[in-house]
Amino acid sequence: MKKEILKMLKETEGYVSGQELCDRFQVSRTAVWKVIRQLEEDGYEIEGVRNRGYRLTGCPDGLTEEELGSAITGKWAGRPVFYYPEVTSTNDLAKRLASEGCPHGTLVTAERQTAGRGRRGRAWMSPKGESIYMSLVLRPDLPPSSASMVTLVAAMAVAAGLKKAAGVEGQIKWPNDLVVKGKKICGILTEMSAELDCIHYVIIGTGINVGQKEFPPELADRATSLLIETGKPVNRCRLAAAVMEAFEEYYEKYEKAGDMSLLMEEYNRELAGAGEPVRVLAPEGEYSGRSCGIDREGRLLVDREDGSREAVVSGEVSVRGLYGYI
Amino acid sequence: MKKEILKMLKETEGYVSGQELCDRFQVSRTAVWKVIRQLEEDGYEIEGVRNRGYRLTGCPDGLTEEELGSAITGKWAGRPVFYYPEVTSTNDLAKRLASEGCPHGTLVTAERQTAGRGRRGRAWMSPKGESIYMSLVLRPDLPPSSASMVTLVAAMAVAAGLKKAAGVEGQIKWPNDLVVKGKKICGILTEMSAELDCIHYVIIGTGINVGQKEFPPELADRATSLLIETGKPVNRCRLAAAVMEAFEEYYEKYEKAGDMSLLMEEYNRELAGAGEPVRVLAPEGEYSGRSCGIDREGRLLVDREDGSREAVVSGEVSVRGLYGYI
Repeated sequence: MKKEILKMLKETEGYVSGQELCDRFQVSRTAVWKVIRQLEEDGYEIEGVRNRGYRLTGCPDGLTEEELGSAITGKWAGRPVFYYPEVTSTNDLAKRLASEGCPHGTLVTAERQTAGRGRRGRAWMSPKGESIYMSLVLRPDLPPSSASMVTLVAAMAVAAGLKKAAGVEGQIKWPNDLVVKGKKICGILTEMSAELDCIHYVIIGTGINVGQKEFPPELADRATSLLIETGKPVNRCRLAAAVMEAFEEYYEKYEKAGDMSLLMEEYNRELAGAGEPVRVLAPEGEYSGRSCGIDREGRLLVDREDGSREAVVSGEVSVRGLYGYI
Repeated sequence: MKKEILKMLKETEGYVSGQELCDRFQVSRTAVWKVIRQLEEDGYEIEGVRNRGYRLTGCPDGLTEEELGSAITGKWAGRPVFYYPEVTSTNDLAKRLASEGCPHGTLVTAERQTAGRGRRGRAWMSPKGESIYMSLVLRPDLPPSSASMVTLVAAMAVAAGLKKAAGVEGQIKWPNDLVVKGKKICGILTEMSAELDCIHYVIIGTGINVGQKEFPPELADRATSLLIETGKPVNRCRLAAAVMEAFEEYYEKYEKAGDMSLLMEEYNRELAGAGEPVRVLAPEGEYSGRSCGIDREGRLLVDREDGSREAVVSGEVSVRGLYGYI
């Protein structure tokens, strides 16, 4: 009923009478009032005037099922959307839904995370309303060893979304962070549940800094937001929808090829520090070289000073470019 | 209190008076009676005689925390034990405990599974009391690509346990099933939760056919039990404890080397069909060859008829030996 009442409010210029809603849905005044309250909690601004009814005066910049669900135009990425005002982390929720059988393409969004995580359990700042926190459930028919490429696809999708919805040119910090002028604007945490030879599901958790006015001093030289970069507010719903649409397109190319061969050229164009010196922190020691972009397996090719070429596997090492650690 | 009362019953020849138990634990007669009932539900046989008290007359062939926990002599594998009379599957329970932070070495056992699973979601028959169903939680500091070797280690541990506790010589069907005279006696389902570059946890689920008198006709030529093979009952608790102890030993060797190099010789001695013809069902087509045992990465080496040697990755293909599909 909530969805239908919202639809009526959106489609009606002026007021929708309470009695009309009662008649339409065969419920009491109290039931209608409760739904209006719920919508207000979701961030909708609704004016209620005695003897006239309800009128929608403002929509949230929302990641709700209603807003985001209707903004997404693709076939499967972001269908359905599960929205929560507050979660421990969207990856946690997505894992639970995935283990309960939710479909490929399910998206979990939240306004706030109480235990947002980055890679290897690092904390991820998750203030309310300023960021996009979303986790996409995928069920790829791939061996676990191929999952690392999905995360590169996700980075490309965020880059495309930033461009389309905010006019911002981000660069990818291999394998899957996004930076703007060397400062981090998006982090991606990919997790999976797998048997040895098949993936149950992959969760792509994405955090995008959208509306932060500033960052604490210890982060200010390493983190940025779309508001800081563009000086104007960016609609989170449009951005999230743009990322989902781009993801769907890239993922289908990735699936078709079975590797990054159809995407590596574009990925490499967006790669931060391509052609520049890097230091690779490998388990067996640190070495210097020049970043030569990814190969079709998604590995970062590094030309060493001794003339040899290394193919660095995602996650095995840290890579430091000219712009320092991020 | 249950554990302590069981301990008293075990250590006392003759009867333990109800009053003594009430005094000792400062509880009512009803509370004591409830614990006795719980122990009976766990399979303990307890004689209660008015004015004399309780006497332990029989212990279950049990996988309970009390029985199995005290039978395991190692340092970490099987510590602690969580026992459930009935679960959907022990892997499900183990995953839940693992995500809640249970330690490396935690073991989940059950008397019965209502939704036992084999690889790739195949059903696994899980009747009550006749089998061992157990799932071990591991937290290896390894990249996900190394997890496939852990399952080979688990197969070796079951082979050692069968030998020690039942005198049965099983063979390993690469990568991780156990067969006796070509019939399956144990299946292992390994699952993991991981980021791209680090494992959160690995669950080794093991199902061993112990007390089945017979199998349905459609399985009878492919499955067997310890009872069928030896003609006598095998104590499940001793067997499970023997598997845990062997696992601990093998796993430490595996961890030390970082691969199968310290274990491959023994693994290959126990490999079914070693040196014999195999057919490999690879994604790109079927081919014939001769099984040459595993290499240090746990891959099955197959000499093809054209003289080339393939290293078959666990799970990527099916291998059919002379004894047919199992």
